[in-house]
Amino acid sequence: MTGRLVVVGLGPGSAAQVTPEALAAVEASEDFFGYIPYLDRLSLGPHQRRHASDNREEISRAEQALRLAASGGKVCVVSGGDPGVFAMAAAVCEAIESGPSEWREIDFSVVPGVTAMLAVAARAGAPLGHDFCAINLSDNLKPWSLIEKRLRLAAEADFAMAFYNPRSASRPEGFVRTLALLRELCGDARPILFARAVTTAQETLHIVPLGQARADMADMRTMVIVGSSRTRIIERARGPILYTPRGIPDEAAG
Amino acid sequence: MTGRLVVVGLGPGSAAQVTPEALAAVEASEDFFGYIPYLDRLSLGPHQRRHASDNREEISRAEQALRLAASGGKVCVVSGGDPGVFAMAAAVCEAIESGPSEWREIDFSVVPGVTAMLAVAARAGAPLGHDFCAINLSDNLKPWSLIEKRLRLAAEADFAMAFYNPRSASRPEGFVRTLALLRELCGDARPILFARAVTTAQETLHIVPLGQARADMADMRTMVIVGSSRTRIIERARGPILYTPRGIPDEAAG
Repeated sequence: MTGRLVVVGLGPGSAAQVTPEALAAVEASEDFFGYIPYLDRLSLGPHQRRHASDNREEISRAEQALRLAASGGKVCVVSGGDPGVFAMAAAVCEAIESGPSEWREIDFSVVPGVTAMLAVAARAGAPLGHDFCAINLSDNLKPWSLIEKRLRLAAEADFAMAFYNPRSASRPEGFVRTLALLRELCGDARPILFARAVTTAQETLHIVPLGQARADMADMRTMVIVGSSRTRIIERARGPILYTPRGIPDEAAG
Repeated sequence: MTGRLVVVGLGPGSAAQVTPEALAAVEASEDFFGYIPYLDRLSLGPHQRRHASDNREEISRAEQALRLAASGGKVCVVSGGDPGVFAMAAAVCEAIESGPSEWREIDFSVVPGVTAMLAVAARAGAPLGHDFCAINLSDNLKPWSLIEKRLRLAAEADFAMAFYNPRSASRPEGFVRTLALLRELCGDARPILFARAVTTAQETLHIVPLGQARADMADMRTMVIVGSSRTRIIERARGPILYTPRGIPDEAAG
């Protein structure tokens, strides 16, 4: 008997940013897999079961969830933010592809959410208002050489850049190198935004020029956005607005 | 007397993807500015006023909204998807920066939403599960030379690519050129996803190899996603899953 598996995005933290679709998917599920802090955000009933796991165990979590769904379970895998951006949706797909053929018969779906970079951008103004890229800086899953190549090409394309997982406790030197490279590519004046724990009571936002950015301004709860060459700051008594205009005049295009 | 202005993202179309935060911001506002189809998605009370405008009038709409907010209004500017991605948040910021100084005193905020590329990616599987970029293909706001440069660099960086506004009725030849360039850069076998009117009753999704993609597969309600070199299709009786694995093994990194 084949069951179903839904991967649900809970948004960046605030209950006010969880969609009705996500809440309905949670309510309709019986077994919940996920990283502990995300499971802690759910209000579960007595018939609903938690299967918590650590952050590094994405593939084994996906496989456990798929095994239970294949045996008829109503399974929910939870992610913060959007599950399709550097999160559990791809991990479940990887497990389906390499797993037994019956896993392809599972009713599999993904419920999107507000991903961290959009919640952060909204708080700051509109830094992603023009073409941009999203890069996972964690080097657990790819070599530094590829991160460096992408940073160089993204800067040449003049994308605004959103960075997920900028700084890991185990490999803090990676973000030091990233900041040094960004200063070389974009110059010391380019604005960089550090946003921590956005939409929660611990939220902080700091905009500084790249020349003043230090690696310890980020931790694993921080999202970092670097502007394009056209990103601007509007100074106000209420605090700065960071935004990237929608268009580029012909004469300014490289 | 200074009022407030909130820019609200209504998500891609389904009411189930509108956040409680967005609904609360609508309820707390009295004057609504936006493109007609987005205003039509609101359930307004008798004390709430619509100020509809055409899609091309973003700056004049922003200025009208700011004038009303500066005179004490409770103003809401609505966007589909997320207002920070190729939408009204940046237009309002542009107007604030170039407008009278009292506009900087307005209580200005942005409420994020589920942007189209994330809703589309969720429906397809997880094509944006690894590093990606988002490019607005409308050439109203930037020259083709810059779009071409960004496509070349994004392909070299091996980003998955999400395209907003792929094909305008007034300039359909731009998307013909885009597809020809993508075939040159990524090869005929690379998967491309056309998703139209996602989360609505008219939703359609088609995944084809780039060699079979035709410009008329997209219109202004279509979001297009092109995979990276590592994006995969899982064939199933239930229909294909399109996804990009989270990591890249060291030996495969260019």
